[in-house]
Amino acid sequence: MNRVFNFSAGPSMLPLPVLQRAADELVCYGDSGMSVMEMSHRSPVYEAIISDAEKLLRKLMNVPENYKILFLQGGASTQFAAVPLNLLHNKADYIVSGQFSGKAFKEAEKYGDVKIAATSKEDNFTYVPKTTRESFRPDADYVHICFNNTIYGTKFPYIPDTGDIPLVADMSSCIISEPVDVSKFGLIYAGAQKNMAPAGLTVVIVREDLMGNSRPETPTMLDYKTMADNDSMYNTPPCYCIYMAKLVYEWILSLGGLEAMKELNLKKSALLYDYLDNQDYYIAPVQKESRSMMNVTFVTGDADLDKKFAKDADAAGLKNLKGHRSVGGMRASIYNAMPYEGVEALVAFMKKFAAENPKK
Amino acid sequence: MNRVFNFSAGPSMLPLPVLQRAADELVCYGDSGMSVMEMSHRSPVYEAIISDAEKLLRKLMNVPENYKILFLQGGASTQFAAVPLNLLHNKADYIVSGQFSGKAFKEAEKYGDVKIAATSKEDNFTYVPKTTRESFRPDADYVHICFNNTIYGTKFPYIPDTGDIPLVADMSSCIISEPVDVSKFGLIYAGAQKNMAPAGLTVVIVREDLMGNSRPETPTMLDYKTMADNDSMYNTPPCYCIYMAKLVYEWILSLGGLEAMKELNLKKSALLYDYLDNQDYYIAPVQKESRSMMNVTFVTGDADLDKKFAKDADAAGLKNLKGHRSVGGMRASIYNAMPYEGVEALVAFMKKFAAENPKK
Repeated sequence: MNRVFNFSAGPSMLPLPVLQRAADELVCYGDSGMSVMEMSHRSPVYEAIISDAEKLLRKLMNVPENYKILFLQGGASTQFAAVPLNLLHNKADYIVSGQFSGKAFKEAEKYGDVKIAATSKEDNFTYVPKTTRESFRPDADYVHICFNNTIYGTKFPYIPDTGDIPLVADMSSCIISEPVDVSKFGLIYAGAQKNMAPAGLTVVIVREDLMGNSRPETPTMLDYKTMADNDSMYNTPPCYCIYMAKLVYEWILSLGGLEAMKELNLKKSALLYDYLDNQDYYIAPVQKESRSMMNVTFVTGDADLDKKFAKDADAAGLKNLKGHRSVGGMRASIYNAMPYEGVEALVAFMKKFAAENPKK
Repeated sequence: MNRVFNFSAGPSMLPLPVLQRAADELVCYGDSGMSVMEMSHRSPVYEAIISDAEKLLRKLMNVPENYKILFLQGGASTQFAAVPLNLLHNKADYIVSGQFSGKAFKEAEKYGDVKIAATSKEDNFTYVPKTTRESFRPDADYVHICFNNTIYGTKFPYIPDTGDIPLVADMSSCIISEPVDVSKFGLIYAGAQKNMAPAGLTVVIVREDLMGNSRPETPTMLDYKTMADNDSMYNTPPCYCIYMAKLVYEWILSLGGLEAMKELNLKKSALLYDYLDNQDYYIAPVQKESRSMMNVTFVTGDADLDKKFAKDADAAGLKNLKGHRSVGGMRASIYNAMPYEGVEALVAFMKKFAAENPKK
């Protein structure tokens, strides 16, 4: 069976060499006599895996020493609660630039005084709102953003200046796609299933001084300090996902790290955006400055044609191009593991489809 | 590389045919052109997997129609909070028969008036305390038990009579090891990494009338109703673990279901307990009536010998026999996937070790 080009927004493509290696050692890992899936998380052989995963991600993202890396469960949606449970004591400000940051805001409302500092909702989230330090309440406990908006295909073109207020960022759909200055953030979290590993792992990178002051109602499992003090092993972690993440980190390092990854991702997204900018069949709704390198959205302007596009593309081996159910149209998610050839194939298909399906 | 016999308490052995099938289809699942790890959780091909997993578990455990099966994340430790967050409004009673039920009790203390109805703590948890309906406060919202105590090697020899009070059971280390009357419980939860799947999946089986009344501070992701209303897909579920669980359920059904599994598990545990009962080198600390079929604990009575036992056994390909760090001694976890031959090999080793290492 040939592998397809899978443009799913997440879970999404994993690097083929990583999958092949995982398949090769699935039944027996090294000389352990067992699968990674069967290992006691407290065995030396598994402890080496999780410890390597942590070190590799720290190296890859150049994570400063005063930040802890946590391997957790529950997805970004669980972090929508964990962030306020750990950090919200007085008030917090949210930039709402898409559906997920809206959900994060709504969840935080359960725990205190939260405010929308800026939003692009009235313009259908087609851009990321600009902010200055004055956009935020000076006594806010933190400012929350979603750095890349998977559904709308936008990304922050800037890191908000929040002064001394810790900046918290959901990076689920852009983490390890390019270098980012971790020291500009108080906390970064990401569901792994877009750019890092199979679904079931959530990575949290948190500055040490922000831990240890959780709200009394915080479930132990959502308390960053507990997880940090136990090196993510307070209970059994999602062992196999962490192993897969380790293989992905190794793969990226073997290609040259995040600088090389950014170059490849820029090349892929430029191919697609350049085509979109030089034709008039498809419309790219996102403002240029806010365009995501990971999720590229476009529409034909005709809902029936959009539907036909996704169906025909699927038949041509270009999978999951249908836009999110809440916005329609098309979305090509081109994360790290999507090869350049996949985007070439997509652009060729788009040209063919436009030629063969004239608009009425 | 030969596979070893892995007596780990969890994560633990998975059936070899399941691992082999997973390896075979890891890179490409059927004619999907992609790995299960890469599938959009909302794609028809993945929806068939999660839906089949649900149906198979329902069949396997004979789950009544008025119970929902949820595929969640976070392990039993997250359920220690989720249970009171969803069910505790007035008071709740806990039977503390081991370390995990103790942790569950402690977590629930954050949310209301909880009481230990019975405990065997003073006897080092070497048995499961007896209870009657009068052991519980009549206005309790629920009674919580841990049905099988992994660390101590005990299991409830009876289902507590709680009258109309919903009985909540942590079945992490005994789920699908034998038939159980689900209708006797209000809620059953289990981390999957002992008997069902790789770590990272938590199964919750909950009676419908117990949902929809969570406490206001409940994180959305811990609200059973939210997860039930979205068929465990409120956010991205731990897709690959669910796929592995499905393969395990199919494997059990192919062997004859839970009746057949119980027969095999009884045979395995009897081999070990019969040996223990008919020699005087090893001591089995658990009272006979409370013995677990899944986790068998024993000691030599000499900490140095215990240490040597685990080390020599490891060298002989019998892995992870060291007891839990909090109790010492030895523990053989012999879940569904442990073959009878593994227990035979263990008993042979125990005899040899006893002969070669006389006590001082």
